[in-house]
Amino acid sequence: MTAIDFYFDFASPYGYLASHRIDALAEAHGATVTWRPVMIGPAMEATGAKPLTATELKKAYTLIDVPRLARRWSVPLTLPARFPSATLAAGRAYYWLERSDPVMAKALARALLHRYWGEGEDIAPPEVVIDVAGGLGVDTAALGAALQDTEIKALFKTASEESMARGVFGSPWFLVDDEPFWGFDKLELLEDRLAGRF
Amino acid sequence: MTAIDFYFDFASPYGYLASHRIDALAEAHGATVTWRPVMIGPAMEATGAKPLTATELKKAYTLIDVPRLARRWSVPLTLPARFPSATLAAGRAYYWLERSDPVMAKALARALLHRYWGEGEDIAPPEVVIDVAGGLGVDTAALGAALQDTEIKALFKTASEESMARGVFGSPWFLVDDEPFWGFDKLELLEDRLAGRF
Repeated sequence: MTAIDFYFDFASPYGYLASHRIDALAEAHGATVTWRPVMIGPAMEATGAKPLTATELKKAYTLIDVPRLARRWSVPLTLPARFPSATLAAGRAYYWLERSDPVMAKALARALLHRYWGEGEDIAPPEVVIDVAGGLGVDTAALGAALQDTEIKALFKTASEESMARGVFGSPWFLVDDEPFWGFDKLELLEDRLAGRF
Repeated sequence: MTAIDFYFDFASPYGYLASHRIDALAEAHGATVTWRPVMIGPAMEATGAKPLTATELKKAYTLIDVPRLARRWSVPLTLPARFPSATLAAGRAYYWLERSDPVMAKALARALLHRYWGEGEDIAPPEVVIDVAGGLGVDTAALGAALQDTEIKALFKTASEESMARGVFGSPWFLVDDEPFWGFDKLELLEDRLAGRF
């Protein structure tokens, strides 16, 4: 069975858009998807890439491209007032939950992405992450403690470092049995690969 | 009738790949395509983007991505030993020829892209550009003189500057009635647009 690793940064609109398509696309071809939230900043810096809104040229394009892709793929979108945002609490919550319940961890990631990109609310504050998790029935007291835990903090950091070691330098990024696919716009080629078209 | 401006840098492999698809794609939807070779370097610098092979991370990805796209879309590819290459002669030849014969200018652009990306031969030397043009029946003496002409040199420079003023900062880049589409991977969305799917 084909295994897909889906890398994304919670602060990436293209990662959010991809989160709405990758599982259904994989399932249609009998592939499985493991979600891997990361901090993509260091890898972007290594390639010279600046954040989407850091330069006027790229910002203008992004503000056209992201909303039209959301329309095209029927993904709810409210551009957050705060961008980019800190994703430490979200990433740590994901990896903490994944250890005991990978399915719920994916549901939490979806809910956090929805809060930030679907509703436009900043998810940097830990209390927002805890609120979103509570809405899914997660033990919020345990989560609150986990967000302060050195071991949990290391999990997210390590996941980000490992992604860079695997060549990941953008969000979203897909590894299909180790073959890299970069960007939301790469989903068509990824599907071509799963369908054996090349 | 929908008008598409197709911006590309002769030194861009993704521009080359797009040159094999854009006209047929447009024609299927009753749109016209004007080719606009440019020097994309200054606009890339403005957004912080480095050349494809300037960093190890992006170079490794590019060396996977370009060949597989060529396979997927049946585009002949021989990675040039010299990359990136200087495109001054190619760009100047294009705009010189376009003034008298736009159809032939597009044929010349195709032939130059093929020489560089299809056969892997550097097209920086003016004599190579003249040789390619001669193979199409272009007046090589007139072209040789044009490549030294101040007015012709300005044409290519102006085209590049105008593209940046229109927000172009990557290759390939498409403006569909002023709506921007960036990258080879954007051709599916561009087709969605032409087909009225969103």
